[in-house]
Amino acid sequence: MTDQLEIKEAFKKIQDSICADLEALDGTAKFKEDLWNRPGGGGGRTRVILDGDILEKGGVNFSAVHGSTTPELKQQLKTEAEKFFATGVSIVVHPNHPRVPIIHMNIRYFQLEDGTAWFGGGIDLTPHYINPEDALEFHNRLKQICDQTNPKWYERYAAWADDYFYIPPRKETRGIGGVFFDHLKAGQDGASKSDIFNFTCNLGNSFAEIYASLVNKHRNEPRVESEREWQLLRRGRYVEFNLVHDRGTRFGLVSDGRTESILMSLPNTANWAYDHQPMVGTAEHETLNGLKKGKWRAHSSRSKTA
Amino acid sequence: MTDQLEIKEAFKKIQDSICADLEALDGTAKFKEDLWNRPGGGGGRTRVILDGDILEKGGVNFSAVHGSTTPELKQQLKTEAEKFFATGVSIVVHPNHPRVPIIHMNIRYFQLEDGTAWFGGGIDLTPHYINPEDALEFHNRLKQICDQTNPKWYERYAAWADDYFYIPPRKETRGIGGVFFDHLKAGQDGASKSDIFNFTCNLGNSFAEIYASLVNKHRNEPRVESEREWQLLRRGRYVEFNLVHDRGTRFGLVSDGRTESILMSLPNTANWAYDHQPMVGTAEHETLNGLKKGKWRAHSSRSKTA
Repeated sequence: MTDQLEIKEAFKKIQDSICADLEALDGTAKFKEDLWNRPGGGGGRTRVILDGDILEKGGVNFSAVHGSTTPELKQQLKTEAEKFFATGVSIVVHPNHPRVPIIHMNIRYFQLEDGTAWFGGGIDLTPHYINPEDALEFHNRLKQICDQTNPKWYERYAAWADDYFYIPPRKETRGIGGVFFDHLKAGQDGASKSDIFNFTCNLGNSFAEIYASLVNKHRNEPRVESEREWQLLRRGRYVEFNLVHDRGTRFGLVSDGRTESILMSLPNTANWAYDHQPMVGTAEHETLNGLKKGKWRAHSSRSKTA
Repeated sequence: MTDQLEIKEAFKKIQDSICADLEALDGTAKFKEDLWNRPGGGGGRTRVILDGDILEKGGVNFSAVHGSTTPELKQQLKTEAEKFFATGVSIVVHPNHPRVPIIHMNIRYFQLEDGTAWFGGGIDLTPHYINPEDALEFHNRLKQICDQTNPKWYERYAAWADDYFYIPPRKETRGIGGVFFDHLKAGQDGASKSDIFNFTCNLGNSFAEIYASLVNKHRNEPRVESEREWQLLRRGRYVEFNLVHDRGTRFGLVSDGRTESILMSLPNTANWAYDHQPMVGTAEHETLNGLKKGKWRAHSSRSKTA
């Protein structure tokens, strides 16, 4: 049986191993931990790494909270259940190098007192400069992970990521997508709760290896001042997505989430420029053109040879 | 009779005179104008000033738009009217000096095809470092302007500003408040449409003088690097308010507003630090303690002697 305690402990271990792997990847900076309690029940371990050799700011948050379902939560979950339990690991890393992408990962488990329970999660990539080879490798790796549990899931959850990480007024995806799933319950496509738990953990456990590969491929490339400026503008766009359009962030901030742990996802510095339009033909313009739904999706033929 | 055209032209003149006054105040930088059309009807003049002697980024936007009421607008306005007209001037200025405050001003007029019409607006101040003398002078000046039309309005609209410019999860006001009003219609407290129009214009016309006084008082004070760091963190908080909690910004971004004109309110650069807590006794800590509703409100006794 897959119970709350087992899931919570597995998620804590995933946080631990990711932090260890990110410190090893960076080589100089170390995480600082902040333990916190939630007044209504439970708490978390917020870990932040700053000013590293490559990691400018990274946040790896674990939380396990429980308590009474607020009216907002009841409305969002369409439930009348009075009590809930939720645990998850959430990560955002902002590198200091414009050619290394921002990455986000989240895994979560939710359970109501009536026994209803589900998993959610995902990994997605926001390059300041899209590298097509990286994008395809990233998606192929996610497809492999999904295919281990169910060959239908990659396609479905990659489409979900494109829809979720989207800025409607700009008709622009946040980055090159990835996978995103929510409300994944036992029975879905024949998967047991334990299958889904394993799938969620597989995703969490793949994070460090996926990111290390991207970081190590690009960290020694030349640093160009104009590319740094573009990086800061793309961070501004990342902030815009997270604060305006990300339903998870907004829900946390307008319900009783811990503001500082939620806003850990923001970079330590970001810029905005009024109506900035890169010139046609530049790498910046190419990147903007690449921020389209479905553009980097892995295909079956490709993944067979991967 | 106060009609759409008269109001629109008056608002355009207010934009013109504010831009001229801000350029004179700055002394070096000039506004750049971007004319835009709204596909559904109307358009605007977005003006941005950058990298000045004191104005790091300032946006002064005029717009006059009309067209069909979208479902979102109908819901927000609780109306079934099919057509609307809206015009307004909106300003945010981010100075480069930590001891000079951020300022925001907005005046707007809205009319539905059924003839329902109202004004809205306000001015509020967000100091990086609260200066109590400035705060009281600022509120006294706003009280004078309100008192010219109706002695009840300052108290009511200052309370409204405190409620509007508020970050609930942080229990913190964005700045030291000011005045904010909306849906102000002919007949309110005996005021005619023309009284309200004049009140709104008075507020708009007071902006440049109010801000010039604050800028000139502080622009030559020493610039301290640690104060600049704090300024960038307060800008991060300003972004947090505008993108997460400001109903006007959010409504614009999720309806068919022009993203770049709306986000003109963001600073050109801002910082975030995880769980930053200034030490007790510092000026930064004092400022945080001052971000409370009602704290800087002008009182009748004070304004009589002002």
